[in-house]
Amino acid sequence: MSEAIHDVLGVGNAIVDIIAQADDAFLEAHGMAKGGMALIDEARAHALYATMGSAIEASGGSAANTIAGVASFGGRAAFIGKVRDDEFGQIFGHDLTSLGVRFTTPAATNGAATARCLVLVTPDAQRTMNTHLGACVDLTPADIDADLVAASAITYLEGYLFDPPAAKDAFRKAATIARGAGRKVALTLSDSFCVHRYKDEFKQLIAEHIDILFANEAEIEALYGSRDIAAAADDLAGQVSIAAITRSEKGSLLVSGSERVAVPAAPIEELVDTTGAGDLYAAGVLYGLSRQLSLAECGRLGSLAAAEVIQHYGARPLQPLGELA
Amino acid sequence: MSEAIHDVLGVGNAIVDIIAQADDAFLEAHGMAKGGMALIDEARAHALYATMGSAIEASGGSAANTIAGVASFGGRAAFIGKVRDDEFGQIFGHDLTSLGVRFTTPAATNGAATARCLVLVTPDAQRTMNTHLGACVDLTPADIDADLVAASAITYLEGYLFDPPAAKDAFRKAATIARGAGRKVALTLSDSFCVHRYKDEFKQLIAEHIDILFANEAEIEALYGSRDIAAAADDLAGQVSIAAITRSEKGSLLVSGSERVAVPAAPIEELVDTTGAGDLYAAGVLYGLSRQLSLAECGRLGSLAAAEVIQHYGARPLQPLGELA
Repeated sequence: MSEAIHDVLGVGNAIVDIIAQADDAFLEAHGMAKGGMALIDEARAHALYATMGSAIEASGGSAANTIAGVASFGGRAAFIGKVRDDEFGQIFGHDLTSLGVRFTTPAATNGAATARCLVLVTPDAQRTMNTHLGACVDLTPADIDADLVAASAITYLEGYLFDPPAAKDAFRKAATIARGAGRKVALTLSDSFCVHRYKDEFKQLIAEHIDILFANEAEIEALYGSRDIAAAADDLAGQVSIAAITRSEKGSLLVSGSERVAVPAAPIEELVDTTGAGDLYAAGVLYGLSRQLSLAECGRLGSLAAAEVIQHYGARPLQPLGELA
Repeated sequence: MSEAIHDVLGVGNAIVDIIAQADDAFLEAHGMAKGGMALIDEARAHALYATMGSAIEASGGSAANTIAGVASFGGRAAFIGKVRDDEFGQIFGHDLTSLGVRFTTPAATNGAATARCLVLVTPDAQRTMNTHLGACVDLTPADIDADLVAASAITYLEGYLFDPPAAKDAFRKAATIARGAGRKVALTLSDSFCVHRYKDEFKQLIAEHIDILFANEAEIEALYGSRDIAAAADDLAGQVSIAAITRSEKGSLLVSGSERVAVPAAPIEELVDTTGAGDLYAAGVLYGLSRQLSLAECGRLGSLAAAEVIQHYGARPLQPLGELA
């Protein structure tokens, strides 16, 4: 097996976030499940945008946020995801490549616009997401560059990829190529509603294809039907090499074989917007693993990156994480 | 004279900001004058964007920022400015109308894209701006809705309007209609480089058309060739009803007849990005004037709004200013 050219390759939905403040009454009036991610069609995206407050726009997408974080730590990163050749597509591409991320998936030249996620941030800093997948539905197995996957030490996949129909096949193709090339495959479960949608498929995937798993407590509960983190950790330890269970302000639990490492959350001055917290935690852990750091050190980098991103609006780090670390 | 329907009508360049961090070396390498606003063509905008770091996008435009601030205070506000019917144009329109601002200038259906300003924020929180005027060059006197101007207590104009050729005529038309309807005309000098470009025209305008003037120390120096604020205040007092001279962290000086009111800057916790400081100061003062508040109280609202906007990225308030006040 040749040496990897990239530390981490992310495969995910390529999305631009449109972020506005909202109160709980707004979420209720629009039937939104607070803290979750709902899929919406174009008509609903337009209608919802028209009722939202003044917003800012920033590149997003779960795996893409993680990849931006890995690059910000100084890691060698790449990304596969589908945009349209429109203004939002240009923004998405710029924000990855400007960090040194290799991003060469061809933009769609027709069809739906680049995906957008309408993010409502409530005064408690919790984010509620409404995603119009747009051009993401055009991601197919043909977009999975086999050489790129084989040249990446870790291929990181987001569970959200199970939503656009053809992306599921792209997901499986990437995982199969990575394993076949002797590389590692990492997965984030993305969202408890997403886990509910694809529970059995995720269980099978984890058992058969995944080396490194990221999940939060709600996702663990959705997968196992219980919040018993210790029991879930024991079960996962038998299926994956490393599991990272995030617990918001309680920090995280890293699991590997019989090892259990509890990592505290990093201190923050002001909680502003939790969008991207899990994504950036994953960035820290994946970067640490690429540098053969201990589980405790990987967790520390994850906590540090998550703490940076929740202190401002937007799901990408504003400060170079390598300097913070 | 019938009662005004709008407290403040802004006329200005309709711009979306693309905001990234940069160091002083980046500014030097690209020949940028720190703290200023340079006009760039489309080719330079593309080239510069390609070298900039990861960015966020947010609606901007000097007078538009002020109008957003007036609306955020609870004022009845309107705006005239030109966008293209593209994604950035939609963003710009949404971010004003979502605040309750009346914005009905028809978007251009062909020609250049919506204007964008590449904003580089250095570690000292200073912003350096590079504007591609795009669709703003299509603002003409035909876009000045005479009824709207006549129905607005104050028409607020930005000096930057002298850059797009036809906008200068739109500017004069708006000022003439407002004065003719017995309303007030306010002007911000916008930028010291802008003052240098149109010095004699600005001097004539102030003497003939302006009731309320906003300027910072650098603009005063560009206009008078001296930093003698007291002398400038005396001169301006003879030409306009109210002049507001901003002095960054030293606060501002409000001038009216023989009255001189020094207003301190509002305290802040962390200086992040000075973009929009002057625009939001003007918002506070104009809102205060619309409510017949004292000069000292107008200045306090200006300081408060400026303090909000310099503690985060982007030139629009993130918190409702009416609640802060």
